[in-house]
Amino acid sequence: MTAPAITLLTDFGTADGYVAEMKGVLLCAAPHVPLLDMSHDVPAHDVEFARLTLARYWRRYPAGTVHIVVVDPGVGSEREAIAVGSGGHYLVGPDNGVLSPALFAMDAHAVALPVNPNASPTFHGRDVFAPAAAALARGAGLYDLGQPLLEPVRRRTPQPARRSDGAIDGEVLTIDRFGNALTNLLARDVDTVTVQSGGMPKLLRIVRTYADAAPHEAVALVGSSGFLEIAVRDGHAANLLGIRRGHRVTLTQIHR
Amino acid sequence: MTAPAITLLTDFGTADGYVAEMKGVLLCAAPHVPLLDMSHDVPAHDVEFARLTLARYWRRYPAGTVHIVVVDPGVGSEREAIAVGSGGHYLVGPDNGVLSPALFAMDAHAVALPVNPNASPTFHGRDVFAPAAAALARGAGLYDLGQPLLEPVRRRTPQPARRSDGAIDGEVLTIDRFGNALTNLLARDVDTVTVQSGGMPKLLRIVRTYADAAPHEAVALVGSSGFLEIAVRDGHAANLLGIRRGHRVTLTQIHR
Amino acid sequence: MTAPAITLLTDFGTADGYVAEMKGVLLCAAPHVPLLDMSHDVPAHDVEFARLTLARYWRRYPAGTVHIVVVDPGVGSEREAIAVGSGGHYLVGPDNGVLSPALFAMDAHAVALPVNPNASPTFHGRDVFAPAAAALARGAGLYDLGQPLLEPVRRRTPQPARRSDGAIDGEVLTIDRFGNALTNLLARDVDTVTVQSGGMPKLLRIVRTYADAAPHEAVALVGSSGFLEIAVRDGHAANLLGIRRGHRVTLTQIHR
Repeated sequence: MTAPAITLLTDFGTADGYVAEMKGVLLCAAPHVPLLDMSHDVPAHDVEFARLTLARYWRRYPAGTVHIVVVDPGVGSEREAIAVGSGGHYLVGPDNGVLSPALFAMDAHAVALPVNPNASPTFHGRDVFAPAAAALARGAGLYDLGQPLLEPVRRRTPQPARRSDGAIDGEVLTIDRFGNALTNLLARDVDTVTVQSGGMPKLLRIVRTYADAAPHEAVALVGSSGFLEIAVRDGHAANLLGIRRGHRVTLTQIHR
Repeated sequence: MTAPAITLLTDFGTADGYVAEMKGVLLCAAPHVPLLDMSHDVPAHDVEFARLTLARYWRRYPAGTVHIVVVDPGVGSEREAIAVGSGGHYLVGPDNGVLSPALFAMDAHAVALPVNPNASPTFHGRDVFAPAAAALARGAGLYDLGQPLLEPVRRRTPQPARRSDGAIDGEVLTIDRFGNALTNLLARDVDTVTVQSGGMPKLLRIVRTYADAAPHEAVALVGSSGFLEIAVRDGHAANLLGIRRGHRVTLTQIHR
Repeated sequence: MTAPAITLLTDFGTADGYVAEMKGVLLCAAPHVPLLDMSHDVPAHDVEFARLTLARYWRRYPAGTVHIVVVDPGVGSEREAIAVGSGGHYLVGPDNGVLSPALFAMDAHAVALPVNPNASPTFHGRDVFAPAAAALARGAGLYDLGQPLLEPVRRRTPQPARRSDGAIDGEVLTIDRFGNALTNLLARDVDTVTVQSGGMPKLLRIVRTYADAAPHEAVALVGSSGFLEIAVRDGHAANLLGIRRGHRVTLTQIHR
């Protein structure tokens, strides 16, 4: 039973050929397993960005899929290389928290991958992660690949905090390609959203979809992952409102 | 009989993981159907750009191919979600004109896709279009998916106009990555091409290919879709000549 | 016996649909052969960049793989279109040196591809290279496609030079996405590396991997292709040090 697919998420870009090398290793070692690009445009070294991207998609794949994630500023250092089994999926990547979305599942288990002395200390994607992913894709078990690692690095999404006045303070986690600011806030029975970005706090109304906003109006809405996001219709909210990662967003609940 | 492929064209970029989510949905619902990226780098919300890109490729695929196109600023609004059968191909996407290249064929027919109440109002790519595409790829008929839609939105490429002096006025439709300005003009028995960009009109000679121009010379030539384009050898014509979408280009025919 | 894969490397970007057209031609002519994107983000017309990228990956694929490389500023001119067999792989592309990595192998042989008069003089990727690649992928032999070409254009990586004082002068070949400057130098028993970029030469120590550098320290290390590269930990070496392609890098060997 080979895997339904191997997916790849990196911060390598494609032009330099690093991803091309990885695909060659995968195709040789796991013939007939489809290779699916998730993205190679993660900002360089941005482990947190990759963690959030992975969180979106890893569970949506068929059981047995192998997800490779290589955003790895510590490559070749003492950080472990790991493989993870979680919810019927496999993941391989550095032990820097990037695989956290899969590590919080009840059945998650991780192993430390041995690093062959011939592996390039600057390119584990090619020499450690691709071979491990291919082995899993061809049917190897997780414990065939390495020894259990009991405390892999786990990064959590920052949690919103309830203030004494009942409002909830959250923050902007990431800005997407459209300029939408994605937050860590769940919005239920909320009337107003206030975003802090430099000077005056801005009050935003909550709408159902972008087209419900007036042209160029800044609004808040529940995004496709269930969390609140801030958008400007036909505009780039983050640029127009001066919002960046980490900026505070506050929910004010009005009792009805 | 499953489809030979499902293709994807979006303005999502890849880094945020939206495309990755769509691919997961597709792989689960239509296993064994190859997923082919057309592009995810369409400028954000640029329906017209995507329409021209789709026009290039949709007919070049084997019969039964399913083309997904999601450039959809009106997602979640009253605009319909549609599936189209045309010339042996299937297409799914928003009813905003982006699928027009396939809608002008004699045998084109469209259905309105029902939107599940659980679908995210901001991400029909994942919750409406991917499931519909997977169903088509697995052999569903168009009318299994929805009710006929008799008047889908159709956008036409602007047509050139013949002037009283016999010249033909066309326009620049798009600028490609190389800076070539692609027009809506067919060039037959034409001697000179004049491009308007700001100040003085510029006369260009017509050549067969880029290498026929002198280094850094601006020329016109028949591009790979049969239409006239303006190029600068080893340079970015649009930047060097100040050409943008919508600028006028005039053909002057000289009788021989 | 069909090919295990067809790979694509171009400078086309994806948004304009040129790559999408090529994939349609390939899918029609070589059904069931996986299409793998290497990159479409090679800088426009940068044959040398593409040559270095190809050098990284072509040998890493299974025997029978067909590599398409289209970075082709001379398209439609007198330059030949070629197909190459080398080390069990096939390659197709323009005869401008971009396929050189495969042309230096002992068993390399090349044929000139005939250009159909109906081929667009500006898009051989679609009309010449994709059809040739599909034919090879379906089992055609190299000599089924064209006549032997005895002197294809071959570009060599510039070679380092040993100076009278025993130091070795090399140069920066390319800058990768992370800002690492990749050189043509092999580093064995070397103590110091000096990079010239504008003003004062800078001395760098050699480390094993990025994480061995102090934060923001500029260092040299042996990259994943075995050549020396210059990096700044958590920074963009080329920008921070003002390094560009062609800049000199000198190895000073100290006898122990």
